[in-house]
Amino acid sequence: MQFREELLNDLRGDIDAVDQQLVSLLARRKELVAQVGAIKNQYGLPVYLPEREAKLLKARRAEAERQGISPDLIEDVLRRIMRESYQSEGEHGFKCTHPNAGPIVVIGGGGGMGSMFVQHFQVSGYQVRVLEEDDWPQAEAILAGACLVLVSVPIHLTVPVIEQLEGRLPNDCILADLTSIKARPTDAMMRVHSGPVVGLHPMFGPTTAGFAKQVVVFCKGRQLDQSEWLLDQMRLWGAHLLPAGADEHDRMMAVVQAMRHFATYLYGRHLYEENVDLESVLDFSSPIYRLELGMVGRLFAQNAELYADIIFNSEEGRHIADRYLDRFQEALAMLKAGDRDAFVARFAEVKTWFGELGDRFLEESSFMLERAQEKFADRRARPAPKAAKAQA
Amino acid sequence: MQFREELLNDLRGDIDAVDQQLVSLLARRKELVAQVGAIKNQYGLPVYLPEREAKLLKARRAEAERQGISPDLIEDVLRRIMRESYQSEGEHGFKCTHPNAGPIVVIGGGGGMGSMFVQHFQVSGYQVRVLEEDDWPQAEAILAGACLVLVSVPIHLTVPVIEQLEGRLPNDCILADLTSIKARPTDAMMRVHSGPVVGLHPMFGPTTAGFAKQVVVFCKGRQLDQSEWLLDQMRLWGAHLLPAGADEHDRMMAVVQAMRHFATYLYGRHLYEENVDLESVLDFSSPIYRLELGMVGRLFAQNAELYADIIFNSEEGRHIADRYLDRFQEALAMLKAGDRDAFVARFAEVKTWFGELGDRFLEESSFMLERAQEKFADRRARPAPKAAKAQA
Repeated sequence: MQFREELLNDLRGDIDAVDQQLVSLLARRKELVAQVGAIKNQYGLPVYLPEREAKLLKARRAEAERQGISPDLIEDVLRRIMRESYQSEGEHGFKCTHPNAGPIVVIGGGGGMGSMFVQHFQVSGYQVRVLEEDDWPQAEAILAGACLVLVSVPIHLTVPVIEQLEGRLPNDCILADLTSIKARPTDAMMRVHSGPVVGLHPMFGPTTAGFAKQVVVFCKGRQLDQSEWLLDQMRLWGAHLLPAGADEHDRMMAVVQAMRHFATYLYGRHLYEENVDLESVLDFSSPIYRLELGMVGRLFAQNAELYADIIFNSEEGRHIADRYLDRFQEALAMLKAGDRDAFVARFAEVKTWFGELGDRFLEESSFMLERAQEKFADRRARPAPKAAKAQA
Repeated sequence: MQFREELLNDLRGDIDAVDQQLVSLLARRKELVAQVGAIKNQYGLPVYLPEREAKLLKARRAEAERQGISPDLIEDVLRRIMRESYQSEGEHGFKCTHPNAGPIVVIGGGGGMGSMFVQHFQVSGYQVRVLEEDDWPQAEAILAGACLVLVSVPIHLTVPVIEQLEGRLPNDCILADLTSIKARPTDAMMRVHSGPVVGLHPMFGPTTAGFAKQVVVFCKGRQLDQSEWLLDQMRLWGAHLLPAGADEHDRMMAVVQAMRHFATYLYGRHLYEENVDLESVLDFSSPIYRLELGMVGRLFAQNAELYADIIFNSEEGRHIADRYLDRFQEALAMLKAGDRDAFVARFAEVKTWFGELGDRFLEESSFMLERAQEKFADRRARPAPKAAKAQA
């Protein structure tokens, strides 16, 4: 018994030593990445270089295999480390793609997304002014000489705010917005301004890791060539710029956002009305349910107005919700009739329709479930006395 | 320009050297963990020791902080590495908690979950026999002297299979099942067998990382003390054993499984009927939508019969689905009436109900979204020519 404990303690000491070396390696790597960041910044190279990343991952995977460890393990670990690096690369600022530009005005620059843009413009060497609700009396002074006016306000305020800009912008100023719907804001911008217009939609929430690998959709309004420096600036931040027509974008968002958020709201409301005991559910939940509950809880931990905006501003979303209800009624009738065969047949149709993407989604969700299991398995709602005893 | 390239190449060479050391460290760690595993196996210590893990993580977080790197980074990296270790710890087998036991019979031992149990029993030193559909004519010989008969067949076959065992089991044999509903199978087992009975529900799919940190629910049937070795064996495998009443379990599963899978089926069916262009959706999708689509696609990439079983076998699930439909109609009416205020008020009620768990879910889902972003951002459906050009 004594001997066993000693042996185990020695080995655990060795493992701790390995893990300490790991911490030191991460610190060393961080230092090197900061130096790369400083050079990239100086010469205007983007934070995120897909080819370099792919090459690096491939080489390490091959080495892992030679040394008898899982290639997926080293890839996952490196991806996690690299994500952290994007952040430190940006700490030294970014090269400015339009050095002699006039000031940039961000309307609603105090909000989450607005302030993320403000911060990135600032560390890229731009002069930035913020225009908040109370600042309209000083609007003329704030807007004077602006090279870009970026509207970052809640959806239902976007068009009214744009309309307030009529006749107040320099002719060559870019007018842009960040709203998650694009057709109506872009139309409004075209009406009030005769210079360059571009609609933007950053497809992510404000995040500490910045723009790296994140998608920003852009919809052409007018004189897109005048906005190239702006798009290039976001590319330097690491963003992936995706061109789209405003109507195409909005149709897609009706599915990806309005419909999905409505379904998530509905599920949360349903749990509330059922008065499900969430603590017990957590005890019983498999990783997959934990993950889904996380997504539902996430919505309600955020701002009701934001989701109201997204859900109520999509006319297309309402039509889709209508058809969704029909399908619900149909599926429920099938369930109540005990028509298992119909279920299996319809399931098969959807499976075929997903095609190869189904396998990809299976693989992707398995990856996510493993991460959920790693992270949350220790955090049950209540410690279970039985197992605790057995493990002591 | 030449100078810049050289500088960058030198730094990248240094980063590659750091990453190579990382691979070697992982290989060294794996070796040490295998030695720990061999000792644990010899002395019958569980794979997963929460206190040791917590202590190790705490120490490395503190060191990370001292060296100026993110404590979350080192924790995430170590959790990923440790998950891989559970697997290699089990490679050397497990100590047997019932060394003189007779053979274990797994009915349906060729299926996913069944074969996972077969493999774990085997590497723990048990003699294991598998009874498949075609083997019933030889059932008497297969069941002779069994210390445990474990039923691992689809839900709708569980009770009929149990009934076939009537009068065929040794008196002191444990009869157990792995079905995701518990009341009816446990009742059936109690009827056909007068010896020890225990209902089990492993709350996870068959996974490469084994039982470590996974929940297995157990429902007392009869003579639970006779099954302690079996529960202890699963604890050695790393499982967290959670006691529950069969009815309590089934009510919980109506929410966690039947209702949730029905909702997911419905959303997938809806996407199919809308004939949404999945490739475009992937281009446009934010990490959050990518994650949700992954969960929907996952369902349809699997077996229709499995989900039909879960959904159609829950009477409680049907009642819940009924009430869900009512809530859907109500919410849709609110949406059509444009009653934003009602939405915001109801949203607030659910938010209050989630309480502190809401913040926890927000934190957990943020973690998951970051992992999704790391892993999938490079794998868009189509490469976008614009961005590719800019980054070249």
